[in-house]
Amino acid sequence: MSILVVGSVAFDTVETPFGKAERVLGGSASFFSVAASFFVPVNLVGVVGRDFGEKELAAFTGRHIDLAGLERMEGETFHWQGKYSYDLNARETICTDLNVFQFFKPRIPEKYRRSEHVFLGNIDPVLQLEVLDQVEKPRLVACDTMNFWIEGKREELKRTLRQVDILLINDSEARELSGEWNVVKAARAIRAMGPHTVVIKKGEHGVLMFTEDGSFAAPAYPLEEVFDPTGAGDTFAGGFLGYLASAKQPGDDVLRRAVVMGSALASFCVEAFSLDRLLRLTRPEIDERFRLFKRLTHFEPI
Amino acid sequence: MSILVVGSVAFDTVETPFGKAERVLGGSASFFSVAASFFVPVNLVGVVGRDFGEKELAAFTGRHIDLAGLERMEGETFHWQGKYSYDLNARETICTDLNVFQFFKPRIPEKYRRSEHVFLGNIDPVLQLEVLDQVEKPRLVACDTMNFWIEGKREELKRTLRQVDILLINDSEARELSGEWNVVKAARAIRAMGPHTVVIKKGEHGVLMFTEDGSFAAPAYPLEEVFDPTGAGDTFAGGFLGYLASAKQPGDDVLRRAVVMGSALASFCVEAFSLDRLLRLTRPEIDERFRLFKRLTHFEPI
Repeated sequence: MSILVVGSVAFDTVETPFGKAERVLGGSASFFSVAASFFVPVNLVGVVGRDFGEKELAAFTGRHIDLAGLERMEGETFHWQGKYSYDLNARETICTDLNVFQFFKPRIPEKYRRSEHVFLGNIDPVLQLEVLDQVEKPRLVACDTMNFWIEGKREELKRTLRQVDILLINDSEARELSGEWNVVKAARAIRAMGPHTVVIKKGEHGVLMFTEDGSFAAPAYPLEEVFDPTGAGDTFAGGFLGYLASAKQPGDDVLRRAVVMGSALASFCVEAFSLDRLLRLTRPEIDERFRLFKRLTHFEPI
Repeated sequence: MSILVVGSVAFDTVETPFGKAERVLGGSASFFSVAASFFVPVNLVGVVGRDFGEKELAAFTGRHIDLAGLERMEGETFHWQGKYSYDLNARETICTDLNVFQFFKPRIPEKYRRSEHVFLGNIDPVLQLEVLDQVEKPRLVACDTMNFWIEGKREELKRTLRQVDILLINDSEARELSGEWNVVKAARAIRAMGPHTVVIKKGEHGVLMFTEDGSFAAPAYPLEEVFDPTGAGDTFAGGFLGYLASAKQPGDDVLRRAVVMGSALASFCVEAFSLDRLLRLTRPEIDERFRLFKRLTHFEPI
């Protein structure tokens, strides 16, 4: 029932129209792990530097997050700096200091190798494939990527995708990967590359999922205050895969609820900087927001 | 049970990445009327020139569309020319020849004055108010507008809005009218101007409706071929208000289904140039697409 996640653990410096946060906890594996750990135990594989201290680790402790795979290396932790304008769907990267992350070679601890679910965070597709080489027949492999790899390592990414069940990707990346402007065509082209399910994230415009059973659309929750969108995509992935992994049986119904659960988690993530809101989130709050999504989207047949 | 619609009847010349159509039937009142007439009789008030002939009129005949209010004036019909790039959500206006439309003074025929439902298409808010002065206590007044009036006739528009029940508006217009970037805040500010219901149209990203009972989100139907988005907003309005007018009792449930019905009609509109797809549409096709929307958005509670 556990999920193995491989991705970045980082410091983020983020500026939005509403404030600034310096060197706060970030990284795809951080957001993913905390979100997924509300549903199932998580095994985290990543790398941090000597500057990653007890204060940062505290975010993971007391949760079902195993840190045996969190390597500590000489040097500094990955540091991302970005800035958002009022249009919170678009962001500008000010600086990406990879630091120890550029030497990251995921080593999957023996006890993680039978994880039933694997989430490959947004890292070099060559490393993503190396992760899959180290695990034993997972039930489900989900994967994220970004334009940097789509442009720079397209063939490597395509090799990885052949072994992926679910690709989570944003709309512009889906267009770039497939060469199709229309998202329905883009999703079909990507499904032909390997993943049976493609989840297209559209930020404030919600999510479109394409499976062998058809398509499913979920809105983003219409929040009055969106404070910082950083990590929303990884938080979505954590809620999505966490819920999937916790379900007794797979199926289209479960996938749909997983999309809504991911959207619910993401709607909390954006309410504060870093993981601040996620760290004081409770399961009853999550379930209540799920019910609000139902209320938001429900209509009776004619 | 009838709807009075006041708006433009026009010729459109449209270029998309998929083709070009010259001097084809367009205009807000045209799209609205054909869409709404699937549900209730429509009384159309507008103006055309001498160049608007039998061929164009044929679009309205054989439907429940009364043309006693369609004035014919010396001169040429309103002609709009626009161009879309691959991002069909954004368009460029090449040319707007108002022609006879610039002299349009809506005169509501006696037999239309007791219409229970009124749709004020996107025209000068001063004219919109003059329409309301000529009708007798309609049950429901819905209204569209655009950035041109928000910028140029803000106070006049606000006077009109005081008498409007439902404002249909796109997201950038909602932001401009309210001065709020966040759409939830924008909707609240607009509801304080008069309309109890605000429907925010987001093109390919669907619709958000804000009522006194809360909010409702509906996606746009994920189509593989979007051929020409011209008229989609007015077609949405026609399906929305047509369904509302046909319902026995108002209420939040009916409003939600009306949003989906509007979205269903709009999803057909964009499949072809002009009103081509709407004119060969059947009620069973509409109901089937409504069911597909249910399938697209449905998920079970946890």
